[in-house]
Amino acid sequence: MKEQNHRLRKWTEQKNVNIPELFFRHYKKLGISDNEAMLLLQILAFHSENVYFPTPNALAERMHYTDEEILAKLERLVQKGFLEISQGYDANGILYEKYSLFPLWDRILDIVDKQAIHQEEQQKKKEEGEIF
Amino acid sequence: MKEQNHRLRKWTEQKNVNIPELFFRHYKKLGISDNEAMLLLQILAFHSENVYFPTPNALAERMHYTDEEILAKLERLVQKGFLEISQGYDANGILYEKYSLFPLWDRILDIVDKQAIHQEEQQKKKEEGEIF
Amino acid sequence: MKEQNHRLRKWTEQKNVNIPELFFRHYKKLGISDNEAMLLLQILAFHSENVYFPTPNALAERMHYTDEEILAKLERLVQKGFLEISQGYDANGILYEKYSLFPLWDRILDIVDKQAIHQEEQQKKKEEGEIF
Amino acid sequence: MKEQNHRLRKWTEQKNVNIPELFFRHYKKLGISDNEAMLLLQILAFHSENVYFPTPNALAERMHYTDEEILAKLERLVQKGFLEISQGYDANGILYEKYSLFPLWDRILDIVDKQAIHQEEQQKKKEEGEIF
Repeated sequence: MKEQNHRLRKWTEQKNVNIPELFFRHYKKLGISDNEAMLLLQILAFHSENVYFPTPNALAERMHYTDEEILAKLERLVQKGFLEISQGYDANGILYEKYSLFPLWDRILDIVDKQAIHQEEQQKKKEEGEIF
Repeated sequence: MKEQNHRLRKWTEQKNVNIPELFFRHYKKLGISDNEAMLLLQILAFHSENVYFPTPNALAERMHYTDEEILAKLERLVQKGFLEISQGYDANGILYEKYSLFPLWDRILDIVDKQAIHQEEQQKKKEEGEIF
Repeated sequence: MKEQNHRLRKWTEQKNVNIPELFFRHYKKLGISDNEAMLLLQILAFHSENVYFPTPNALAERMHYTDEEILAKLERLVQKGFLEISQGYDANGILYEKYSLFPLWDRILDIVDKQAIHQEEQQKKKEEGEIF
Repeated sequence: MKEQNHRLRKWTEQKNVNIPELFFRHYKKLGISDNEAMLLLQILAFHSENVYFPTPNALAERMHYTDEEILAKLERLVQKGFLEISQGYDANGILYEKYSLFPLWDRILDIVDKQAIHQEEQQKKKEEGEIF
């Protein structure tokens, strides 16, 4: 019993990675492959551990790719405008580099906006159809 | 400005999917491929929308696979003991089926336990080494 | 052992409520009391269960207040511009009411912006001080 | 526009604090006041920033209490068996202290268990009632 309670404690102490639900719904539409999606999520997982610029090697240890393959995938994601390398200053004024998925969030919001406009138009047509 | 504030509002209203951080750290060790990992996360994303038994078709719409390929992958994940189909009763006493990732969480905790034991042993050896 | 494993399963199946970390850091600065803060979080907890317009009674059942006290607190939070009652359409085109904390998020971002500007100015002064 | 996009970016980069949904549902039943509940959540918020043993002063800065009042509340929460001060070793083998809410999670699971048993009994009675 003690043994099992210890497992429950372990579980309650671990962290969660928070992923926007819209990511799962829309990455395919943006031409992101399932493997690339997983790589982006691994980057978010590192962020949740306060590692903002994981090395290709650190990512390769958790995925079925070599360092070189990870690097090539990261470069492609940057080129396609889903991932960016941004710079900031920490609390001590030290410059640091980090991966940011903001360009991806921005594009996912574009999709959501387009869908909302389309839905409104459909609704409007439906209402007009009901009138005439 | 209004336009952009509207996007901020949209973002704050969307939901997050909570993924145990240990998942990202350990799925590879369990012999789960990156694509299978993504499929498991898609199931969790559906859970967060209160869809507990997404159809192969619903999953295929969000991933780069056909319904048949999704079905084959789901069956493999069940066979390998990472995913189970469990049954429960909702608030109205109606029986429902749902996917559960509990077998996977259980096995990830096995890994964490083993690592903790190994670490303790290493620590002990180190301390003994310091004494003699 | 089985018994305890059952508790672990229960825990892994429960949902989390995601609260912006900035909320905890800044509500006091905005003149929100600890009790009001708790009420706002209870509203977010209902949102995570897909209840977007909990009644004063439903909130009172979870807090140490009467329905009337909850209602008075909700009105004050609306008046002070932290909470709003917004309207939307669900997937079936049905109008619904819901509480939104967007005005609060907007004001918390104002604080964050002001702090960032202040910090930059301090940094600049420090750098100028180092030159002369 | 740029200005507003900057706010969206800020928001997407902030962290979330994950609170078990069961907390909001059950703390009142355990005799925890709304203010104490808020204090417990502040501790979890510090945890999400990797501060596992926030000082009374750090907590007092975010709540409407003095350091002494915070300390008294923390002591009461420990005495009542909702909060514990546990010890562990970090990756470098250094001993650290931290607050743990595990005793609270354990007691919330007790409530959930009792409710499940009660519900099953009601269901059984209902079914027997239907037979005779």
